[in-house]
Amino acid sequence: MVAVNPPRGMRDFLPADKARRERVLALIRERYRAHGFDEIETPVMEDHARLHAGVGGDNEKLAFNVMKRGISAETLAATTDAADLADLGLRYDLTVPLSRFYASHRGELSGVFRAVQIAPVWRAERPQKGRYRQFMQCDIDIMGDASSRAEAELISATLDVLDALGLSGASVRINDRRALDALLDVFGFPEADRPGVLITIDKLDKIGPSGVAAELRERGSAASSVDALEAFIAGFEKPTDPFGAAQIRALLPAGIPDEIVEHLVGIGEAVSAARGGAPLEFDPFLVRGMGYYTGTIFEIAHPDVSYSLGGGGRYDGMIGRFLGQDVPAVGFSIGFERIVDLVQIADDAQSRSVVLVHDKDVPVAELLAHKARLVADGARVRLEQRPRNLKGVLDRAESDGYTSFATMSAGQDELEIKPLG
Amino acid sequence: MVAVNPPRGMRDFLPADKARRERVLALIRERYRAHGFDEIETPVMEDHARLHAGVGGDNEKLAFNVMKRGISAETLAATTDAADLADLGLRYDLTVPLSRFYASHRGELSGVFRAVQIAPVWRAERPQKGRYRQFMQCDIDIMGDASSRAEAELISATLDVLDALGLSGASVRINDRRALDALLDVFGFPEADRPGVLITIDKLDKIGPSGVAAELRERGSAASSVDALEAFIAGFEKPTDPFGAAQIRALLPAGIPDEIVEHLVGIGEAVSAARGGAPLEFDPFLVRGMGYYTGTIFEIAHPDVSYSLGGGGRYDGMIGRFLGQDVPAVGFSIGFERIVDLVQIADDAQSRSVVLVHDKDVPVAELLAHKARLVADGARVRLEQRPRNLKGVLDRAESDGYTSFATMSAGQDELEIKPLG
Repeated sequence: MVAVNPPRGMRDFLPADKARRERVLALIRERYRAHGFDEIETPVMEDHARLHAGVGGDNEKLAFNVMKRGISAETLAATTDAADLADLGLRYDLTVPLSRFYASHRGELSGVFRAVQIAPVWRAERPQKGRYRQFMQCDIDIMGDASSRAEAELISATLDVLDALGLSGASVRINDRRALDALLDVFGFPEADRPGVLITIDKLDKIGPSGVAAELRERGSAASSVDALEAFIAGFEKPTDPFGAAQIRALLPAGIPDEIVEHLVGIGEAVSAARGGAPLEFDPFLVRGMGYYTGTIFEIAHPDVSYSLGGGGRYDGMIGRFLGQDVPAVGFSIGFERIVDLVQIADDAQSRSVVLVHDKDVPVAELLAHKARLVADGARVRLEQRPRNLKGVLDRAESDGYTSFATMSAGQDELEIKPLG
Repeated sequence: MVAVNPPRGMRDFLPADKARRERVLALIRERYRAHGFDEIETPVMEDHARLHAGVGGDNEKLAFNVMKRGISAETLAATTDAADLADLGLRYDLTVPLSRFYASHRGELSGVFRAVQIAPVWRAERPQKGRYRQFMQCDIDIMGDASSRAEAELISATLDVLDALGLSGASVRINDRRALDALLDVFGFPEADRPGVLITIDKLDKIGPSGVAAELRERGSAASSVDALEAFIAGFEKPTDPFGAAQIRALLPAGIPDEIVEHLVGIGEAVSAARGGAPLEFDPFLVRGMGYYTGTIFEIAHPDVSYSLGGGGRYDGMIGRFLGQDVPAVGFSIGFERIVDLVQIADDAQSRSVVLVHDKDVPVAELLAHKARLVADGARVRLEQRPRNLKGVLDRAESDGYTSFATMSAGQDELEIKPLG
């Protein structure tokens, strides 16, 4: 017999899990929609060439390739690179498809387009605990708005989503790629080196300031630059004053352009106005991995968990690659698979749910008539033939979210509905 | 510049379309759930071997193959069949994955397990109008119930779904593969021939009784059998009496086993009890294509459209192929892509929706504060900077489902909300 497991690194969802996931997704969808985000959908596959155009970073290497149809023996024999046999691939993120979608449909969309996408992506990663080869992403993106209004809308909407999920108290670490660039400039790192230097700084939380310095020396950066950066990092103290221009300037060397600081301050003021307080914190060493970020970058953390609940940033250059014309864009992705295990949302859509346990000899027509009456009455109804082990059946129903039950014999007109558990 | 269209035969969904699809899906999900169906989810990919095990019929040939990762030049050179380079594939239906799921998780599920699956499938068909390479399927299945209760639950739940979608008045054509088999037996078609004969009978609506007879003669069936079948089909008249044993027996030659008739009658009685009338019609020539059906088969039609809105049947043998133990199973699939274009469901989830058109000089913080107040008040809110063409922006918002708007200048405390359109 063939194995009956799902493919490696992928998951089946049983009823209780699936229902919980759908409740969380529905709530996220509803809240983002309230904040003016319009849901769109793209196919799960994109052209192979598009997925491997260099914007997907390391994820490109993890793409599942989909084979051309009808490959002949001759074609196969003439092929030396297996990738040439693929014309499609499964998307590894929702940003590449969104950029393609926007370039294709721009004329049919609002001038400032706020998109929400709630959909699975696939990455052929080495399966490990908490990391899957198919997982859900929830992305929001705003195209066509270069102002701080865009970041402020993303951040306030997301904090509202987290509140609705019972994850109040989240905070936002924020930085700007241009500030990072200016910082490296101040310390004398040459421009061509900086992308590599950022990859090292991104490890600061893991390897500490001396680890960063060691790695940079090994990479061949100038000793004077590395020493200056190490001293700056080591001397850094978490800000205690509120988020604002003073805080940001105090945490950066002199010479950071005003416009960057003003953009960040504008975000903070707007989030604060929307929520009566902005849980923002400037972090001059926040990098975030993706190579396509060009401006603001941010991450959301929650005191209950050690990992980030999501993050995003500006990627003003990417749409231009598809459209031939630059469009400002900023996006945020909620870590759905991390969040879904943290939250409990009561299933209040159908507060009445009844397991109807019937004797074997009740005619099917009688059963269905009773069921129809209860369903018409607004209940969710499961029929169960009375088993030897009634408790087992009732326990299963309770774990599937049922709240009451009734027993039924042939010819019985009235049901007595009793609470489960 | 690279083309920005979705892959051939696949679709992007813009906001208005996506919202409508999600409303229809939510309603289908909610109604099936009320009828006791539990939603499950499987990965979009299954093992290549499983997708090509012979149960998928013609759909197996349409499967998209997913390549193994890291195929070396040596492996490629040694490969003579391209299919050997695939270890996974995209599912072409939801029945093969469900059977695999059930075999894997049976111990964690109810004894009688009612599943609903709402998910996309992929088939590399030649793209044509109304036929896509990625499309949604909505399947319900009942595993572990050999009685007519199972068919009755599927049919009543589905008629309820159609009512909720505004498609009342649907009717159900029903038959049984065993009745078809008995019919062919009566006319003397040898057992080994019957699968092929069924494929021809399946074309009756298109090619008529003489077309069926001609094709059967060409296939080499005995003239006496073909003549008898042709006479029987030609003499067939649509029943006018209500669905029941008398109707069924009148439409079949003598010698059809009682148990088949009783099963069908049981379904009719139960659907009638649930709904105060059963819109069932026995059709002795209904075949339905899939090779795996073993008993009841049925199709739902609606007077407004010429095509079927969905169909299903019993496939008692299939689970056994995965589990090594037969389990009765019956399923039904709604033709979602056909239905979604027929229905209009009002978007009443957020009856208050406001487009806030603001002057360019309104500070972002003021904007976000106004937006937050409206959102907290239960509205859906879109911000728009006042454009030269205000009407264009308001028209777009209206087509995206917004119902009201307000204009806003810097320092304005109170908003005057006016209806759109």
